[in-house]
Amino acid sequence: MNLFEKLEETKVFRDPVHTYINIEYKIIWDLINTFEFQRLRRISHLGGTKMVFASSEHSRFMHCLGTYEIARKIINSVEDVRKNTTEEDRLVLMIAGLLHDIGHGPFSHCFESFYQYSHEWYTERIILEDSDIHDVLVKYQENLPLLVAGVINGTHKNPLLKQLISSQIDADRMDYLLRDAHFSGTPYGYFDADRLLRVMRVRNNKIVYKNTGINCIENYALGRFHMYGQVYYHPVSLGYEILITMFLQRMKDLYLDNYKFNFVVEEIEPFFLDKPCEVREYVKLDDSIVFYYLMRSLKEKDEILKDLAYRILNRKLFKEYEITYEEEINKHRDILLKSDYNPRYYFYIDETIRNIYKKYGYCDDGSINILFPNGEIKELSEASIVVSSLANNNSFKKTVVYYPDLKGE
Amino acid sequence: MNLFEKLEETKVFRDPVHTYINIEYKIIWDLINTFEFQRLRRISHLGGTKMVFASSEHSRFMHCLGTYEIARKIINSVEDVRKNTTEEDRLVLMIAGLLHDIGHGPFSHCFESFYQYSHEWYTERIILEDSDIHDVLVKYQENLPLLVAGVINGTHKNPLLKQLISSQIDADRMDYLLRDAHFSGTPYGYFDADRLLRVMRVRNNKIVYKNTGINCIENYALGRFHMYGQVYYHPVSLGYEILITMFLQRMKDLYLDNYKFNFVVEEIEPFFLDKPCEVREYVKLDDSIVFYYLMRSLKEKDEILKDLAYRILNRKLFKEYEITYEEEINKHRDILLKSDYNPRYYFYIDETIRNIYKKYGYCDDGSINILFPNGEIKELSEASIVVSSLANNNSFKKTVVYYPDLKGE
Amino acid sequence: MNLFEKLEETKVFRDPVHTYINIEYKIIWDLINTFEFQRLRRISHLGGTKMVFASSEHSRFMHCLGTYEIARKIINSVEDVRKNTTEEDRLVLMIAGLLHDIGHGPFSHCFESFYQYSHEWYTERIILEDSDIHDVLVKYQENLPLLVAGVINGTHKNPLLKQLISSQIDADRMDYLLRDAHFSGTPYGYFDADRLLRVMRVRNNKIVYKNTGINCIENYALGRFHMYGQVYYHPVSLGYEILITMFLQRMKDLYLDNYKFNFVVEEIEPFFLDKPCEVREYVKLDDSIVFYYLMRSLKEKDEILKDLAYRILNRKLFKEYEITYEEEINKHRDILLKSDYNPRYYFYIDETIRNIYKKYGYCDDGSINILFPNGEIKELSEASIVVSSLANNNSFKKTVVYYPDLKGE
Amino acid sequence: MNLFEKLEETKVFRDPVHTYINIEYKIIWDLINTFEFQRLRRISHLGGTKMVFASSEHSRFMHCLGTYEIARKIINSVEDVRKNTTEEDRLVLMIAGLLHDIGHGPFSHCFESFYQYSHEWYTERIILEDSDIHDVLVKYQENLPLLVAGVINGTHKNPLLKQLISSQIDADRMDYLLRDAHFSGTPYGYFDADRLLRVMRVRNNKIVYKNTGINCIENYALGRFHMYGQVYYHPVSLGYEILITMFLQRMKDLYLDNYKFNFVVEEIEPFFLDKPCEVREYVKLDDSIVFYYLMRSLKEKDEILKDLAYRILNRKLFKEYEITYEEEINKHRDILLKSDYNPRYYFYIDETIRNIYKKYGYCDDGSINILFPNGEIKELSEASIVVSSLANNNSFKKTVVYYPDLKGE
Repeated sequence: MNLFEKLEETKVFRDPVHTYINIEYKIIWDLINTFEFQRLRRISHLGGTKMVFASSEHSRFMHCLGTYEIARKIINSVEDVRKNTTEEDRLVLMIAGLLHDIGHGPFSHCFESFYQYSHEWYTERIILEDSDIHDVLVKYQENLPLLVAGVINGTHKNPLLKQLISSQIDADRMDYLLRDAHFSGTPYGYFDADRLLRVMRVRNNKIVYKNTGINCIENYALGRFHMYGQVYYHPVSLGYEILITMFLQRMKDLYLDNYKFNFVVEEIEPFFLDKPCEVREYVKLDDSIVFYYLMRSLKEKDEILKDLAYRILNRKLFKEYEITYEEEINKHRDILLKSDYNPRYYFYIDETIRNIYKKYGYCDDGSINILFPNGEIKELSEASIVVSSLANNNSFKKTVVYYPDLKGE
Repeated sequence: MNLFEKLEETKVFRDPVHTYINIEYKIIWDLINTFEFQRLRRISHLGGTKMVFASSEHSRFMHCLGTYEIARKIINSVEDVRKNTTEEDRLVLMIAGLLHDIGHGPFSHCFESFYQYSHEWYTERIILEDSDIHDVLVKYQENLPLLVAGVINGTHKNPLLKQLISSQIDADRMDYLLRDAHFSGTPYGYFDADRLLRVMRVRNNKIVYKNTGINCIENYALGRFHMYGQVYYHPVSLGYEILITMFLQRMKDLYLDNYKFNFVVEEIEPFFLDKPCEVREYVKLDDSIVFYYLMRSLKEKDEILKDLAYRILNRKLFKEYEITYEEEINKHRDILLKSDYNPRYYFYIDETIRNIYKKYGYCDDGSINILFPNGEIKELSEASIVVSSLANNNSFKKTVVYYPDLKGE
Repeated sequence: MNLFEKLEETKVFRDPVHTYINIEYKIIWDLINTFEFQRLRRISHLGGTKMVFASSEHSRFMHCLGTYEIARKIINSVEDVRKNTTEEDRLVLMIAGLLHDIGHGPFSHCFESFYQYSHEWYTERIILEDSDIHDVLVKYQENLPLLVAGVINGTHKNPLLKQLISSQIDADRMDYLLRDAHFSGTPYGYFDADRLLRVMRVRNNKIVYKNTGINCIENYALGRFHMYGQVYYHPVSLGYEILITMFLQRMKDLYLDNYKFNFVVEEIEPFFLDKPCEVREYVKLDDSIVFYYLMRSLKEKDEILKDLAYRILNRKLFKEYEITYEEEINKHRDILLKSDYNPRYYFYIDETIRNIYKKYGYCDDGSINILFPNGEIKELSEASIVVSSLANNNSFKKTVVYYPDLKGE
Repeated sequence: MNLFEKLEETKVFRDPVHTYINIEYKIIWDLINTFEFQRLRRISHLGGTKMVFASSEHSRFMHCLGTYEIARKIINSVEDVRKNTTEEDRLVLMIAGLLHDIGHGPFSHCFESFYQYSHEWYTERIILEDSDIHDVLVKYQENLPLLVAGVINGTHKNPLLKQLISSQIDADRMDYLLRDAHFSGTPYGYFDADRLLRVMRVRNNKIVYKNTGINCIENYALGRFHMYGQVYYHPVSLGYEILITMFLQRMKDLYLDNYKFNFVVEEIEPFFLDKPCEVREYVKLDDSIVFYYLMRSLKEKDEILKDLAYRILNRKLFKEYEITYEEEINKHRDILLKSDYNPRYYFYIDETIRNIYKKYGYCDDGSINILFPNGEIKELSEASIVVSSLANNNSFKKTVVYYPDLKGE
């Protein structure tokens, strides 16, 4: 089939964030209608965050469509990007935007803490190996899986594509900041995406931004910084994900101990054995299966498993204590040790570091570069006093310990 | 405990629809933190609709909070409502708003087609019988479950409460129109809720609206009308729910035929046997369990069950055909009968009727009544030429048949 | 100069309604920077309306840019319009959108009540005669003034252009409904403009709309209907314009009576003599001059002039009385006649008729036509039950008399 | 009359920024309907800014209503403010919010450069001396003018009132940031005003903010900082105001030189003579009179006056040159001196300094103070790493010279 074949009529998804998501190419439509892509409807975008920002119930399905849409807009409106890409590059970029999160499993962060295979690893395998998505890609062009995976893993020969999908300002981050800000009802993440695209240029195979847009970029950087502080790293949000991790850890320990569950666990076995899943099996996993395990665990005889499930489903989270001095950790641990709770499942130390901006040399892909009227290019932290003032500051580090509220319960 | 005890500080949920949902009373906070209420996070508000309007991924949890918030706003801002209610009435109203959908199961409409116990029936039982919610209610006041259930089933002695929760303009409808419009990205459902509250008055124990707000009410009525036409009764949306119904029907037939499933089905047995569930068991059901059944069914040996699951998870819906003349239905049935598909699971006739407004006499609860400066009260279809022109029209009826696309597959 | 010359970089105006207004062609930029176009910044878009909807303080400048932007979007996104227009046609259309209101004077409706030269007449003269705008147009192409005026007066040989600027759904109306709704803070005028453009097609040199967009068109028609009822024809809004008209009438009467004003009146003389102004003089008029007359009139010796100025500047409007029966008018007139007020300046009868939709035959330009999948085209009131129900109703007529509040003052 | 008398029904102004502005007290309604307050409709809120952000056409009328509304919201929703104010204090605060800008003249900044009487000085006089506003105030309570003026000039005995109207976070700034951001179409100024009010507390007669709202305050401070950089100090915006100043300077020089204007100039004489106006005369001035002078000046024989008027009305602004080194100023001056332009009217040096936050000791009114759970209060730049990083930076200073574009014209 012809890679560049268009649909008879543009199809659209309505979207409160981008108003409309526009599907022009047949291959994009075919990819959306695969089993693996439809599955993203059942993977929450923000795992624990909806325990705090209850309205952020959106899925990875919408985020992937949104990332695709931003990639499409860049391609259609940024003249310099058009000039520095082939027609194939552009379609590959849109596909990579669409598929960049296809390997996410349910509560990925929770699984990844005791499992060596990351969601990025599964993303590549789904594209390159046996899947409906792979079938669609090769039907249009034999080497398409390699090209798309190449954008995601950074091996594609046109370096612009990688930058547009994965750098400090990219289609992925732009969509998720706007989307999470919108759905959570917090205004922090908003920034002027239209203007960002207007000042985007290409110099020496690098994405740069005209200096007239520097306020807009400062706004974006601060927005991201605040979203991490207020939303993504909210202690209640992390506390929920910690409980899920503890629940899975307990399931694993029981499984390895030959415990008999009152429900089928074959889908999750590879994770407990730290073995790769078959792609066709992996993509059957979604948030529902974890919730099913939780619901069934309410009837389990193992008290720890049952209690952790009960806590998750009833939002009886651990209490969190922010740590100022290292030694406080031990003080908290001692308190817990005096109770009946097993610290393996009931005590957790979490450390988060927020950066407003990570400075790289001009040649690294991740840095943000500013183009001045005289043609000079400066790295953002040199060009923006706001960013440099904040980037030099190392104090945005936070340690929190989590364990059950021993008095309040 | 004291029914009217306030929280030390007002707690809030951010919400893109109402900006903030404000929790002032301790009992409201306690109810939200029950197992049964938290479960609503896992019940989609618009079952099949997200197959068309993909971003409408919000849950009944947010809708119930939103209904509560509108009830709260009415109580705080409509002087006439304050004057005609006791403090107890007002708290009961807010609780009824919060709990009005507590009995919804996963894909309720689908279950209700072959089951005699409706979600309304379960709502009452959860409030009146053995549940965390019931426990919270009685802890504050012995007869509170009866009072709250009375608002929902229309037996409460203050008739205003029922009208504010269930009539043609009520807190429930106001929230879901605004919410579904917002999340689906369709502007049709918007109306000026603030203004509606400003013109709300009470006369003879009836909610009436000042005639200066008549445009606002016309807007509301037309918005509702368009939401039904464009969103709720969208053929793809209905088509998805039909597939779920067919899948459940096949499960039931197999179950009654002693088929051995490759997964535990005890949670769904009462539905297949048309028996009431225990309340404590019923509230373990959520959307996840249905998705789990679907995922496991992909590996079942029964070809029909497997195919229906595959269709649902892959969004391979039936094709829909709008019917103009009765006889067309038979024509379509004949086409299907010539194929290998079993019509019991692969042929469905759906009929929908939309009304812009249902006229009742002034004494019925559901009618909308308009108050004129001279004190006269007219029923909406007499007061509004726009509504009467449309209400007299009986043509908004639609019949659609659904079955697999025999050519396209 | 080359008519199709583009600016080096697209210039933009930020706009809360369309987000950005994009200027790509040099001629558009040059037209915006003329004296006549800049003057529109000083002509209020909604004369009296801001006395009721105080935040609707936007000017004709923004409305004209917005009309241009919608014309530009139609050209860029509606394939059928591209196919049925030449490059010249398209540029002429955008220019006509930009300039369609260029002839508006301050409070045009007020002047037009005692003056035979309408703002449409001045629009044509500004384009065709001695003005900076005319100079810009001929600099690019000799016959351009004729082509642009042809679109506005309906003589251009491509009938599509006229329809897109002036019909029941056109760039002008689309912009003003969205803009006035936004700035007045009333939600009634919103409709889904993006979707309208998506379903726009051309058949037999007519703009038609695919039937899948019929709800969207109903929404638009009802929105327009409600905006007239709630905003444009609001009695306070009309009452303010009536006062301005009365003030100008008194000025005229005094002028013709050789009254000596305490300020220069040469700019307004042609209006009092019902003579055409020179174009270069006409375009010096803006809202400021009327406010200057009003301010100076506070010190005039003529009591009527002074009183009317005082009323306008202090928002001491006449009181309005809606009339049900013809004879009530005389009753009100009698009341006024018994006071000291001169009815020539202090009594006004206003009649407004609202239509949801004006039905024309399919061949007239103004009708809205719906395209069905089988190729059939139906006029809107045949295709939409909602519109036909309302269009047949003749009752949206209203008569109001205005005069000073004799008791309240 | 009773100061606390309420209107029979709450009156509202719709407003895109606050949705509704609510008027509950009779005195507020009476003040809005004075000549002096209605005049604010004819004073643009952002003088030169609309030359860049064309849609920011809103007036001081809406800003004053908005400031009142925020004061009203603080009073109604911040418990600590209620506790620390009397009923009289609260009404005085709302009135002070409403009237805080009543003394603004047309293009105040332009006038203030050659005139010793500031708009603040006139605000006090309008409240304290002969005006409709003064009349309304004393009608309700004899000492009310003194109380209201006391809030504005900082002499009122309750120090909270001054802080709520004039400090680094106050009702005035909150409204103008939100309003200017909204109308200009720039997202920079948005912040979460609702949340700011939720975390507002009073300690030792000072407004403080709970530390949980610190992100929100950082957002506010950065938003303000960006609004100054992008909107208020935009070179085109300043360039327009410089032209107005130059025009007024030329008028003044001509006037003092006994030049005969072709129009009445009595209204502006006091400004040229640097004498106070009578209050009743001062309040006749609005933007219209300046535009009238400009329009008439197009026909003046003085070439400089005529040219400056032409430039303003045609948006032919001076060109701006940002200065890096002091000596560049002389280089630019030399260039101008070689032309025929008189530098008194055609050369201008502008210096702007932006601060993210001005640090005061805890006892000064203007500082922002943060309340920690242990009761400790820290000044913002100690509590926020983001603010301290930026506040220590002195580099946000900018010098720009303006003069005609000698090549481009």
